Amino acid sequence: MGLTHVDKDGKAKMVDISAKDVTLREATATGSVIIKAETLKMIKDNKVKKGDVLATARIAGIMAAKKTDDLIPLTHPIPISEVSVDFEFDDNKPSIDILVYAKTNSQTGIEMEAIIGVVIAAATIYDMIKAVDRTATITNVCLLKKSGGKSGEFIREEKYES
Amino acid sequence: MGLTHVDKDGKAKMVDISAKDVTLREATATGSVIIKAETLKMIKDNKVKKGDVLATARIAGIMAAKKTDDLIPLTHPIPISEVSVDFEFDDNKPSIDILVYAKTNSQTGIEMEAIIGVVIAAATIYDMIKAVDRTATITNVCLLKKSGGKSGEFIREEKYES
Amino acid sequence: MGLTHVDKDGKAKMVDISAKDVTLREATATGSVIIKAETLKMIKDNKVKKGDVLATARIAGIMAAKKTDDLIPLTHPIPISEVSVDFEFDDNKPSIDILVYAKTNSQTGIEMEAIIGVVIAAATIYDMIKAVDRTATITNVCLLKKSGGKSGEFIREEKYES
Amino acid sequence: MGLTHVDKDGKAKMVDISAKDVTLREATATGSVIIKAETLKMIKDNKVKKGDVLATARIAGIMAAKKTDDLIPLTHPIPISEVSVDFEFDDNKPSIDILVYAKTNSQTGIEMEAIIGVVIAAATIYDMIKAVDRTATITNVCLLKKSGGKSGEFIREEKYES
Amino acid sequence: MGLTHVDKDGKAKMVDISAKDVTLREATATGSVIIKAETLKMIKDNKVKKGDVLATARIAGIMAAKKTDDLIPLTHPIPISEVSVDFEFDDNKPSIDILVYAKTNSQTGIEMEAIIGVVIAAATIYDMIKAVDRTATITNVCLLKKSGGKSGEFIREEKYES
Amino acid sequence: MGLTHVDKDGKAKMVDISAKDVTLREATATGSVIIKAETLKMIKDNKVKKGDVLATARIAGIMAAKKTDDLIPLTHPIPISEVSVDFEFDDNKPSIDILVYAKTNSQTGIEMEAIIGVVIAAATIYDMIKAVDRTATITNVCLLKKSGGKSGEFIREEKYES
Repeated sequence: MGLTHVDKDGKAKMVDISAKDVTLREATATGSVIIKAETLKMIKDNKVKKGDVLATARIAGIMAAKKTDDLIPLTHPIPISEVSVDFEFDDNKPSIDILVYAKTNSQTGIEMEAIIGVVIAAATIYDMIKAVDRTATITNVCLLKKSGGKSGEFIREEKYES
Repeated sequence: MGLTHVDKDGKAKMVDISAKDVTLREATATGSVIIKAETLKMIKDNKVKKGDVLATARIAGIMAAKKTDDLIPLTHPIPISEVSVDFEFDDNKPSIDILVYAKTNSQTGIEMEAIIGVVIAAATIYDMIKAVDRTATITNVCLLKKSGGKSGEFIREEKYES
Repeated sequence: MGLTHVDKDGKAKMVDISAKDVTLREATATGSVIIKAETLKMIKDNKVKKGDVLATARIAGIMAAKKTDDLIPLTHPIPISEVSVDFEFDDNKPSIDILVYAKTNSQTGIEMEAIIGVVIAAATIYDMIKAVDRTATITNVCLLKKSGGKSGEFIREEKYES
Repeated sequence: MGLTHVDKDGKAKMVDISAKDVTLREATATGSVIIKAETLKMIKDNKVKKGDVLATARIAGIMAAKKTDDLIPLTHPIPISEVSVDFEFDDNKPSIDILVYAKTNSQTGIEMEAIIGVVIAAATIYDMIKAVDRTATITNVCLLKKSGGKSGEFIREEKYES
Repeated sequence: MGLTHVDKDGKAKMVDISAKDVTLREATATGSVIIKAETLKMIKDNKVKKGDVLATARIAGIMAAKKTDDLIPLTHPIPISEVSVDFEFDDNKPSIDILVYAKTNSQTGIEMEAIIGVVIAAATIYDMIKAVDRTATITNVCLLKKSGGKSGEFIREEKYES
Repeated sequence: MGLTHVDKDGKAKMVDISAKDVTLREATATGSVIIKAETLKMIKDNKVKKGDVLATARIAGIMAAKKTDDLIPLTHPIPISEVSVDFEFDDNKPSIDILVYAKTNSQTGIEMEAIIGVVIAAATIYDMIKAVDRTATITNVCLLKKSGGKSGEFIREEKYES
């Protein structure tokens, strides 16, 4: 199997999906923003503030998922049926972990929408905390799971840890 | 110092930059896409293909940096003077490493444009290789350096390694 | 029945429409721009000018309806089949009244596209007359009618008058 | 004084602002979404839910203000220094009232950005409550105040009430 | 047959496509950028450079084709299945010739996406060479072929030569 | 002088404009849509229809000029001071000729904005007449004149005629 976005002569092109079936396709992606313990505490101590940091990042992630075909050159515009963005705190790393789930009835999959939801939600968190935590790091962004379509189901067995 | 994007009542707002000086501001951000050795070899063995994977990711990163204020809710639109996106192969991790440099004459900094350039270039690489490497992972995205403005110079001392 | 865009924990999410039927769905929305009598006369006396104020607002309304999913965070991208924007003069209020009709074959309705067509056509009129009429007011923007989908037909019985 | 966006032959054009001074310019716009008492109660009774309806509308209004030159055909792209979106409940109408304040250092004013912030925040509220309140109405959207630039200060003396 | 985008009173509107069949529709458009012999030689002598000029124009053309409904006021958003952008050198004119092919399963055709792919790829070439060739000219942009839909197949018999 | 958008290794990058002066910069571009005599007559015989075909194309050209940095990968976002789009009929070719003038106070020129205004106005005309004139051709799009900046004034001496 080769790289599907590159044609015989190495020229980039959108691959033809016109003969593929319209099926229900789902994807889940994840990623983390590693922050300082003080930043996590600052966020936790101020409920209202935390609410809004995450609410802003959630809306940013959902809106960006809908812009995927405008950001990633060779993706197809697809009718998105659902996007959700969820967050969890991890006191040990410490980090804010992000989980994005996306669904479509389409001729191609929705992995990139899930990935874009994660990276833009993560970048939004970085934007909101960078005044106090410039070393925050976006890390371990990957696809956890996808289903639907000819390539079938994919479940990531182990998380990459650099 | 508190979270500058959240007002007294925890409501998100764009901060006022109208009284800040227009100065030259620069930012450099980095990140990696961890890929399988076979994927890296596949890219290396086919010069033309590699050229286009990176050329596509480079253009995607530059164009996305220009869309930063449309992606990150509380950022200000700024006049970007320059953006460059560079790649390096690392045979050990193995990975494609990304370096984005951005410059502006503006009343506020250009860190987010550099970060967005990295994450969208990275996501584009993922999009182009995902048919052969679904476990590829975007990792260690962070600000390396910034200068200009009242908060002065920032240089990251050590890279985060999860 | 609860607020469909807010999940159990009060977090915003796009609702899942993947199991809904693709049906013909229509929506009509309306609104007014209240202007001074002199402004209305100025527009009427100059046929060419009037033509272009309304032509500009009409194009703005149609183009904005197509951007609805980029403006309203939790809306779904839908394939729009038709949008029309019409205007009427009312010498008594005095006002320019706006009527937007939109149609789709989709899994979810097209009310928001009609509403966005109205508010952006109205804001465009305001932009074009504000040099002579800064007190112009956009008012009574509402859904008049919708049909298609599980929730069936809705016809507004009386217009809101504040 | 004539309509500044229409040229001698009635053709729409962007007016030339190249000879105008760069000055600090501010604008405040307002508007209301008239809702049913039950809807207002439903929003009030669920703090978390209310938080997110308004948080979503706030982000939508801020992001749309930054897209003004992409929505209103003859507006100029301007460097926005600050945008804030605030809400108040009015139990009597009953309504959610919206106040948008915007600021720029620019050669032209920022009224349209404030107006767009109001109408898109309002349309977002409508989108989030329409399942329970399809007769909600966006009303009394107008400029309250502006300052800066050759045309000087404008303060609306009385609110339009239809 | 009249102009389908203009209604009885001469007002622009999106035509209703809701009753049309979803069929496979294809379109091919072409165009040329006339350049100086030195510019063509400069591009040819530097393989890497040529690669990137064309790679940049190719990505720009593909991304712009996906934005067609945001650029051309009365077009419908359609699900694009494939877009490819190809280039040929003509030493005689001398020129870079552009060929864009686009495909969709949709209720309306994809000619405009092909045309937009051509003009934006052409304008991108102009942007990249304008420092050395300000007289470069974009010319002979036209539809070569389309198929699918009620109006059936169209094949352009002879190329326009001004 | 070399190709300014391509760096030493042939990689595309936005050129650095941060050290250039902010000066008044102007550009004028032109182009034609060659149409059938019947199409031109059809447009002329119906004043209202003609008005709207051109009004739609004019708005499309102005709005697209403002999106130039989102369409052409290596252009810089610039504060546009003025854009105008004008049309002329030529009964001999026959054609609709387009003239776009654009102005900015900026660190870089505005040629691409003028070119984009021409090609998108032209493509919009094509879209509106394609049902009756599928062989219409966009041709002779070029820069007529530019001034301002270090490279000084450019005036095209003769129009390209293929």
